[in-house]
Amino acid sequence: MINIEKKTEVIKLNKPVYIMSSAAVGATKEKEGPLGDYFDITNDDVKFGEKTFEAAESEMQRLALNTALKKAKIHHKELNAVLAGDLLNQCVSSIYGLIEFDVPFIGLFGACSTMSESIALGSVLIDSGHFSKLAAVTSSHFCSAERQFRFPLEYGGQRTPTSQWTVTGSGAAILSDTSADTGKPQITEVLFGKMIDKGIVDISNMGAAMAPAAVDTILKYFRETGENPADFDIIATGDLGVEGKRIVENLLLSEDLDIREKYNDCGLMIYDCEKQDVHAGGSGCGCSASVLCGYFMKKFEIGEYKNILFVSTGALMSAGSAMQGNSIPGIAHLVRIQKM
Amino acid sequence: MINIEKKTEVIKLNKPVYIMSSAAVGATKEKEGPLGDYFDITNDDVKFGEKTFEAAESEMQRLALNTALKKAKIHHKELNAVLAGDLLNQCVSSIYGLIEFDVPFIGLFGACSTMSESIALGSVLIDSGHFSKLAAVTSSHFCSAERQFRFPLEYGGQRTPTSQWTVTGSGAAILSDTSADTGKPQITEVLFGKMIDKGIVDISNMGAAMAPAAVDTILKYFRETGENPADFDIIATGDLGVEGKRIVENLLLSEDLDIREKYNDCGLMIYDCEKQDVHAGGSGCGCSASVLCGYFMKKFEIGEYKNILFVSTGALMSAGSAMQGNSIPGIAHLVRIQKM
Repeated sequence: MINIEKKTEVIKLNKPVYIMSSAAVGATKEKEGPLGDYFDITNDDVKFGEKTFEAAESEMQRLALNTALKKAKIHHKELNAVLAGDLLNQCVSSIYGLIEFDVPFIGLFGACSTMSESIALGSVLIDSGHFSKLAAVTSSHFCSAERQFRFPLEYGGQRTPTSQWTVTGSGAAILSDTSADTGKPQITEVLFGKMIDKGIVDISNMGAAMAPAAVDTILKYFRETGENPADFDIIATGDLGVEGKRIVENLLLSEDLDIREKYNDCGLMIYDCEKQDVHAGGSGCGCSASVLCGYFMKKFEIGEYKNILFVSTGALMSAGSAMQGNSIPGIAHLVRIQKM
Repeated sequence: MINIEKKTEVIKLNKPVYIMSSAAVGATKEKEGPLGDYFDITNDDVKFGEKTFEAAESEMQRLALNTALKKAKIHHKELNAVLAGDLLNQCVSSIYGLIEFDVPFIGLFGACSTMSESIALGSVLIDSGHFSKLAAVTSSHFCSAERQFRFPLEYGGQRTPTSQWTVTGSGAAILSDTSADTGKPQITEVLFGKMIDKGIVDISNMGAAMAPAAVDTILKYFRETGENPADFDIIATGDLGVEGKRIVENLLLSEDLDIREKYNDCGLMIYDCEKQDVHAGGSGCGCSASVLCGYFMKKFEIGEYKNILFVSTGALMSAGSAMQGNSIPGIAHLVRIQKM
């Protein structure tokens, strides 16, 4: 029997890592949702002027990063690297969307957890002293996701009550260690999550598949740090929707942790689930990414937010793995953002 | 016009990051190749006892990491994180292969550049002081790759002369900052590559697609550091094969950099191209991963190697992106490994 010393897993950054700027891009449904005003760019053409849905998703990433760079007043060559990934096979929306930026590329795969994964990783890279400015980018597109993971849109299949609506959106954030950005929101703590598999095999119930991972990460965070949920302006999971959010609340309560007063889910915030007919809520890498890079960052800017936990959640599966009978592991990476 | 100060991009690590142990897993063709004796595990059952090729690939990752952990005499819970990714849609071989390890998971996508990407990223994470032990893992499988990217095996299609043979293999390396590992090979420098697209659209000529990225990275390394190629025991690219290796040599010569004396490609080392009927050579994430984790690490162990450059190369595309007419960008991340 090996004796293993239990290590702390929450990483407290040694130096300030600022979110210099951010940008959110969406389409019509996102514009019409409750957070529509917080997007930097929305386009009623779901193809964003491109020939395919996949190219449209790439274009959203390009627009998001370009807009964030403009807001930060920096040239893309000032970035030390871009960290990005997405839901499409071989992350092609990141690849074709970001190739015009002449910057080292660090490709990630975290499914819908990509935004918090890229920010968490980017923060540690900057904390290492080897990087000064990084971009974290991701996206999803309803039409490219439906085509790849579910049914051809033309088929017009019925959606189950637990199914979620993939957000057509992209978010980009510029991370920086520059003291000129003092006063900007800064990342102070990060926690990389574990893959958790509770045996969910229903690809129309991603919320249930991801919720246990969110519980694992959130519980670990509060147990290790001793922080009080009441001290946060919001504790936001990625895209668990109605079903997943309820599971998180219940499982955390059974562990004597009550976060309900401050807890919400980006998938429930981005759409009006009833009026917009999205069933259990929004999902996709672009969901938590655009809510963070649009709405949350605006709340920091106007002084309403000073302290949040951002926990994007990912369902780790492919269309093929589901057809081969595999269950769907979830993952949740956590980022604490504060304004001092 | 923005005035941009040109930044150095080669990262020199501040503290020693050791490769504590490594392991390589392969199948029959890899066993029969020139490096067959350097694999830790080979299995003549291409399904590794599993029901599908995809599950076999997962099993290879599990075996590789388990073997590396055993050689390092550590429990998986001592790892601060696992960095992994692969070629399959949504990186499912990493997900299902590594889920049993109760460790934070940082998912990557770098196509066949994943081994050097994961080691480069892991090295900087350890250098940050926030991580002490990490695992870097990847894999590929001939049958799962053919099924996903090319033709059903049953179709028995002819392969073009420039096509490469996806290695059925996996490599895992344990990185550590522990001084007890002094004397082990250590990572001293890393360089994250840029995506380079020279317009190659032939999915049967990945070598040509990836070569310009390898040139960009290798040229930048030597120009920035002023190192002499002759001082390295080997400068190894990932999986460029016959075609890509020749392009790299020629393009570097045109830039007055001659690395030919020390240059080889893992895709040409792992198979006997003539006798084993693999056309232009080996490819896949598992190619450079198993050559590094098997052959190169053994060469360090017996004292033959003291100083190498390891440059895995990736072709960034999906079956869908190729069908939609996109060209294939390449990427190459560089890692310098030395034994002091």
